[in-house]
Amino acid sequence: MRVKMDVKDVKEITNLLLTLVSEAKFEFNQSGMSVKAVDAAHIAMIVLDISKEGFIEFESEDAEIGVDLEKIKSMLKIAKSSDVVEISKEGSKLTFQIGNLTRSMALIDASALTVPKVPNIGLPAKVVIKRDDFINGIKAADNISDSITLEVTPTEFEMYSVGDEDVSKLTLPKDMVKEIECAEPVKSTYPLDYLMKLAKAIESTEYVTVYLGKDYPVKIVFEISKGNGKVTYLLAPRIEGE
Amino acid sequence: MRVKMDVKDVKEITNLLLTLVSEAKFEFNQSGMSVKAVDAAHIAMIVLDISKEGFIEFESEDAEIGVDLEKIKSMLKIAKSSDVVEISKEGSKLTFQIGNLTRSMALIDASALTVPKVPNIGLPAKVVIKRDDFINGIKAADNISDSITLEVTPTEFEMYSVGDEDVSKLTLPKDMVKEIECAEPVKSTYPLDYLMKLAKAIESTEYVTVYLGKDYPVKIVFEISKGNGKVTYLLAPRIEGE
Amino acid sequence: MRVKMDVKDVKEITNLLLTLVSEAKFEFNQSGMSVKAVDAAHIAMIVLDISKEGFIEFESEDAEIGVDLEKIKSMLKIAKSSDVVEISKEGSKLTFQIGNLTRSMALIDASALTVPKVPNIGLPAKVVIKRDDFINGIKAADNISDSITLEVTPTEFEMYSVGDEDVSKLTLPKDMVKEIECAEPVKSTYPLDYLMKLAKAIESTEYVTVYLGKDYPVKIVFEISKGNGKVTYLLAPRIEGE
Repeated sequence: MRVKMDVKDVKEITNLLLTLVSEAKFEFNQSGMSVKAVDAAHIAMIVLDISKEGFIEFESEDAEIGVDLEKIKSMLKIAKSSDVVEISKEGSKLTFQIGNLTRSMALIDASALTVPKVPNIGLPAKVVIKRDDFINGIKAADNISDSITLEVTPTEFEMYSVGDEDVSKLTLPKDMVKEIECAEPVKSTYPLDYLMKLAKAIESTEYVTVYLGKDYPVKIVFEISKGNGKVTYLLAPRIEGE
Repeated sequence: MRVKMDVKDVKEITNLLLTLVSEAKFEFNQSGMSVKAVDAAHIAMIVLDISKEGFIEFESEDAEIGVDLEKIKSMLKIAKSSDVVEISKEGSKLTFQIGNLTRSMALIDASALTVPKVPNIGLPAKVVIKRDDFINGIKAADNISDSITLEVTPTEFEMYSVGDEDVSKLTLPKDMVKEIECAEPVKSTYPLDYLMKLAKAIESTEYVTVYLGKDYPVKIVFEISKGNGKVTYLLAPRIEGE
Repeated sequence: MRVKMDVKDVKEITNLLLTLVSEAKFEFNQSGMSVKAVDAAHIAMIVLDISKEGFIEFESEDAEIGVDLEKIKSMLKIAKSSDVVEISKEGSKLTFQIGNLTRSMALIDASALTVPKVPNIGLPAKVVIKRDDFINGIKAADNISDSITLEVTPTEFEMYSVGDEDVSKLTLPKDMVKEIECAEPVKSTYPLDYLMKLAKAIESTEYVTVYLGKDYPVKIVFEISKGNGKVTYLLAPRIEGE
């Protein structure tokens, strides 16, 4: 396996996975790369699929590669966002090369890493919003509560958080979203800390698609690697007691 | 009450008040807004007066609003300096709106907040200097001593701090100040920590006016809200033992 | 003694010395300034020689000045890099003046400060590389190991660090270095923490010259003060047990 990718894209992939896990199994085949990960508490799941067009160079047969994500993050610190990194696997070593610098690391036993089965959930509502709106809606809930509610109606999308005395709310009427599909109003509440981490890791996509159902996991979908990759993030709802 | 203001100005007002208190009472009437606050140790006092021209929109009758300043600061973190915030009071709720984001907070009982009587002190010397000189003169005293002496003479203004072995000093001869009024030399010493906090919170004014008397409180006056607001800061002197 | 220098240069000199000591003796004579310092563990040594052309103004007779470097660093915090600082000695006081600000500090007894004898070491290999390559080669070793090996061969220069499972390496083939002089391959290993501090303090030079011998101290030479000053840094090797 030998691929080249923009440092910027490798950074975003690494940061996204690090919101849930510190090690991950990357699966390569001739047409691209895929990663699936679930956090230890089984509250959230992330799936990244990047076609070979998302790489600058791509040469791979089937391969499963277990990687320590913190090591990649540490290595990328000295790289510029405009750099290109070459990643190659030889035996049980993975080598990253950026310019004249190389870093080789031992692979992690891929068979020991949990790869979740991704459930196929039908969700009745869908909204496509700008990344910045999504991020601001989450960040606005900071210091208000430890959960945030997403709500889609036929005419608007809202993200809100209700504290003891304070309320934060992002309201996007129909004309402020790119797309909305919703037959009847639906809302669910989610743990804020997971979404806060996600908000800090999403960087390059222009839009975020949110699929929502009542007391169902939310499915958040967005692009990476200049549109040649897709991220699907699933987060379990927080069911409020009566 | 419903007003609109540049986020930049709301931030500066909040930061200035936070140098002394964490909660404050804002008094509105038809012509503008006023806040008075004194720190718990009664060493410093701040008065802000902003005419309605300092707002982008202003619509208010007489109102007293008790606010948790830390909450405002936290909310403004996600706003850009170029944003505009709309602030409105409905019942016992205060609502901040920035673009599509809203945040509502419970008002604090305004009657429980201390509003100081501002003393009318006649001070014999006056000097008008650039904000940057004022800030640098204070910051230069860091790590030297816990107090700083201000001195005005007919021909110059000085701020200096004397440590065990070190001395820091800002000297502004007459031609380096905008205005100086002083019949005979006068100086007083003040706690550095208060002025250091003030120096970090002053942002938009071009000049700072310092009124000084021997062993009297110093009165520091400067503009906010693009010249449509005035801040008066009074700080008690540190009387040195003999 | 009365000299003027760009704040940028004073900052770099101070940061370089602070990698090894907190106090230093500056020796002035009619033609320039010199400082020699060794760290408490006697593992590394630094020599700075700056000719009077490295100063904006230079007026000095023979003088030995003991200085607390942390105080200089603290004072420079409020200066802009584009500022000029005037440094003068009167009696046992050293005064720094930046614009209208002055800071006077008591000199440290220069006779109490250790000034190392600089050994004259003949080293067989020499390589001249870009500062950024040198810095990146060091930084890449972070989190890999606590030591780094430098190796020169007739055809390339390498810096590498070998951890339990990971390896970082900077490889500069002959055409990527400015100059290489090496009859036969030579390598030595050095403590990473010293080089990491050095890498953070080197700022203005374009190139770094590395002189290397097997299990000998490395000699690292580079310019400061726009080519009018020279820094020589000597670092003892870490001799690996058998």
